[in-house]
Amino acid sequence: MVHRHRRQKTERRTPGLGVSPHLAGLRVSGRLWIESGDETFLSWGRIVLLERIREHGSISAAARSMEMSYRHAWALCDAMNQLAPKPLVEMATGGHRGGGAKLTATGEAAIAEFWRLAQEFRLWLAKRSLRLGKGAK
Amino acid sequence: MVHRHRRQKTERRTPGLGVSPHLAGLRVSGRLWIESGDETFLSWGRIVLLERIREHGSISAAARSMEMSYRHAWALCDAMNQLAPKPLVEMATGGHRGGGAKLTATGEAAIAEFWRLAQEFRLWLAKRSLRLGKGAK
Repeated sequence: MVHRHRRQKTERRTPGLGVSPHLAGLRVSGRLWIESGDETFLSWGRIVLLERIREHGSISAAARSMEMSYRHAWALCDAMNQLAPKPLVEMATGGHRGGGAKLTATGEAAIAEFWRLAQEFRLWLAKRSLRLGKGAK
Repeated sequence: MVHRHRRQKTERRTPGLGVSPHLAGLRVSGRLWIESGDETFLSWGRIVLLERIREHGSISAAARSMEMSYRHAWALCDAMNQLAPKPLVEMATGGHRGGGAKLTATGEAAIAEFWRLAQEFRLWLAKRSLRLGKGAK
């Protein structure tokens, strides 16, 4: 009851951002990632790395295509593999900088899930952008 | 009914992230801000700065309380004022580092709108975290 009273008062009083139609450039934006415990598990950059590994068949070629160091790319793959219940990237060993690398089914599922989430996030952001300054719930 | 049917199908097809119950630590996380054109208009840090200005009555005291330089805090306030249809911060002039500063009604509305948005975002993230790896839409 107290809460309801407060909300009504706030809604009546709040003029929103004072956004007029001519300020249509205002929009809600954001970034999304998936954490495991306190560590980043999947992010936009990591997912692109996974896709490049699928495309190029090796971590070093994938890293080069993103202008990322091999060392960093390898560390990201290792981190993802450690955090996931099953590895996302199968890293072949042998030779300088190891052999090839390929995505596992879990890696493919991670990519699909991340992009689905990113798409839902884009829709959410677009909806919130439209509501901006309208004081709507 | 249709909805229930669709969810069941999706769950059967999508392997998700292969997340087992023991991996409950996985969660969707993110950051949110409001842009005007290509520039940041409101962000978590800017909103806290506005709140500190309300609390301390001056940009310099607000900046000090956040361990932010006065120069940076002033630039952020100036940017917000320029991007908004009406100023968020009323900056009194006169004296070294100007006089006091206070929030306008538009500034108060911006704070309220941002936190409401942030709260909606938290709920959205929590819901998506629960769905993670379940392949649900």
